[in-house]
Amino acid sequence: MNSIQRKFAELATENAPGQEVRLTTHASDGAFLGGVIEGRPVDFSHGDVDAFLPTPGALDAFLEGYRRGGSQAYTEYLGDAAVRGAVAERLGIFTGAPLSAAEDLIVTPGTQGALFLAMGATVTSGTKVAVVEPDYFANRKLVRFFDGVLVPVEMDYLGATGRAGLNLDQLEAAFRDGARVLVFSNPNNPTGVVYSDDEIDAIAGLAGKYGATVIVDQLYSRLLYAGQAYSHLRAKSVARENLITIMGPSKTESLSGFRLGVAFGSASIVERMAKLQAIVSLRAAGYSQAVLNVWLAEPEDWMRDRIQRHQAVRDDLFAILRRVDGLALRKPEAGSYLFPRLPDLTISAIDFVRALRLQAGVTVTPGAEFGPHSFGSIRFNYSQDHEAAVAAVERVAALIERYRVRRVARSA
Amino acid sequence: MNSIQRKFAELATENAPGQEVRLTTHASDGAFLGGVIEGRPVDFSHGDVDAFLPTPGALDAFLEGYRRGGSQAYTEYLGDAAVRGAVAERLGIFTGAPLSAAEDLIVTPGTQGALFLAMGATVTSGTKVAVVEPDYFANRKLVRFFDGVLVPVEMDYLGATGRAGLNLDQLEAAFRDGARVLVFSNPNNPTGVVYSDDEIDAIAGLAGKYGATVIVDQLYSRLLYAGQAYSHLRAKSVARENLITIMGPSKTESLSGFRLGVAFGSASIVERMAKLQAIVSLRAAGYSQAVLNVWLAEPEDWMRDRIQRHQAVRDDLFAILRRVDGLALRKPEAGSYLFPRLPDLTISAIDFVRALRLQAGVTVTPGAEFGPHSFGSIRFNYSQDHEAAVAAVERVAALIERYRVRRVARSA
Repeated sequence: MNSIQRKFAELATENAPGQEVRLTTHASDGAFLGGVIEGRPVDFSHGDVDAFLPTPGALDAFLEGYRRGGSQAYTEYLGDAAVRGAVAERLGIFTGAPLSAAEDLIVTPGTQGALFLAMGATVTSGTKVAVVEPDYFANRKLVRFFDGVLVPVEMDYLGATGRAGLNLDQLEAAFRDGARVLVFSNPNNPTGVVYSDDEIDAIAGLAGKYGATVIVDQLYSRLLYAGQAYSHLRAKSVARENLITIMGPSKTESLSGFRLGVAFGSASIVERMAKLQAIVSLRAAGYSQAVLNVWLAEPEDWMRDRIQRHQAVRDDLFAILRRVDGLALRKPEAGSYLFPRLPDLTISAIDFVRALRLQAGVTVTPGAEFGPHSFGSIRFNYSQDHEAAVAAVERVAALIERYRVRRVARSA
Repeated sequence: MNSIQRKFAELATENAPGQEVRLTTHASDGAFLGGVIEGRPVDFSHGDVDAFLPTPGALDAFLEGYRRGGSQAYTEYLGDAAVRGAVAERLGIFTGAPLSAAEDLIVTPGTQGALFLAMGATVTSGTKVAVVEPDYFANRKLVRFFDGVLVPVEMDYLGATGRAGLNLDQLEAAFRDGARVLVFSNPNNPTGVVYSDDEIDAIAGLAGKYGATVIVDQLYSRLLYAGQAYSHLRAKSVARENLITIMGPSKTESLSGFRLGVAFGSASIVERMAKLQAIVSLRAAGYSQAVLNVWLAEPEDWMRDRIQRHQAVRDDLFAILRRVDGLALRKPEAGSYLFPRLPDLTISAIDFVRALRLQAGVTVTPGAEFGPHSFGSIRFNYSQDHEAAVAAVERVAALIERYRVRRVARSA
């Protein structure tokens, strides 16, 4: 295996969200117990934009962009100037710290694009990068792709209450050992927990103390459940030239089909990201960019309703899963992910994920994607049709019982 | 300057197409001679999709994709299976060699995205890459970004007739010296010349002999002028597992605002490209992908008309420029680029490009972007309104006269 083949062997995607269609049958399928549990199939690997429809006005904004023609097709690599102007102002208000539309913001092909460019602009061969575990699976893959060195930092989300559970001692040790970059998501993907104000303060303080760059993925920061507080890192007294915040309209707003994201903060990092974008994909799709004109400007009652409906799904699924003996779960505070740790099963977690798909019509993302300590967990994106999701998670609970390791009762 | 800053210093974009809006005034502006020549501004740095409108049916295909909803928003990373099916069949016919929709084709965010993924999937630290000069500017930038080693191969497009003018001895020497990858565009960007059948044969033979991977960017291969032959490398007896062909609907078809491209050929390289796409941007914008349903299936008379109109613009601009004393120019055989080498001027080529913009309302791309031997050339993308383009190139000719180095006549 040559060096490029080795590099790509680490970028496996066969268990990545939405890619299950490429999986073929597997030797272990014969080991499955029992029959198929009928029910409407649900793909929890990503949100269902047919259940939660795109933002009102999004398509009209696209069509306006199309009609604008050439100027919208060929924007600056940073993104259309008028779009950046509108979005920069709203993001400044939303995050509690103003930004310059001219220099501090780049429009990207999705938040994945933003993350790739931000990492590519800050990580090179040998760069030590602190990565939270569990966290979004691409973070670790990106560090490897850019030949950086992973420095894991644990988040004890199941043990903590009122905070995400980041191990701040480990974070400081990572910085002390030379980590130049920290990347994390808040709310956390896959657990749906939100970092406390104290945690965000501590991260700002440590990054400042050690001069580290921070990339914070706030993709789900608009979908906060009733009463949940949220602290924006960029509103803290943090070295702004070392901070990039990532957001986008693909989750709460269901605009994923337009592939839009933004990264904002440090002008020097944004400048490098634009140079990189010039060779990666030139720009986010021009006409799509116009859709951002309706972003962060949705009708208030529409947003409120959207959050309440997600909260209702969360509550029902949480209630089903918490009744499963031996399953460990924290109630999500934001976003649309549930990340239960399964009880001991008679088949491997990855085979259980296959069994869910083949025997219950339920697609989930294996926990192993999110870090080496999450092999026994599965992730649900519950931005789904409410009724179908409830029925599907009932089937998951039934399959857990089917494959549960049963302890033999001791005789007296 | 640390290593990441050095890396990005090589990715300068300030003279890249469409980015001139970010240029501010410059010290040398005071050295300009004479006044402004009035006329409708023309931006020759990219095609004008308001002059050559998007393919009929493209917007409707997008809207169908939008209505399809979730399945179109969340496609496989390779791209929507139905879209790939339709496109693979047509590409097989167009290029004269069939391909598998399941394994040999990936849909990307623009042809730039295809090129980035293809290079990322084949070039790593120290990989020697043969790059034609002059050729598309991103080729060299990508080699540098992936820490590869550039091995230039000259193309004497001004000296050759009936062929592009590739120096085949240099190409073989590059392979002999260890170049593992060759990247080139055909028709060539920026010159508009087409490789002869003999040249394509020779490239296939040499790549096969040395086991090199070839990435051929055929973005303009549909826009061939009357009587022009074209040989597809992939139709040759070439080692298919080492060949990637890149195309897309952003030029001839004016669909650039949807950001679509395709790469096809080697299944093993396509597989790596999909893994890379998973961390770069996940997929080409889902709804946009549906636009490919009308690609390569345009009404015949529409395509014929489009080519004829480009040819008419070419002929008029060529006639104006060939009258300019000392200017060297080859008539483009395909595509929509003219790449004249300017006569000696009293200001630097880069200042002349600035003068064109500020004094004549004409934006062109400096030749330096395309290779170290092209500093004295400028590139026009003449996919423009015919009348405006003619008037603009008349202004260019006038400015060349204004800045021409005048030899003092010897007395007898």
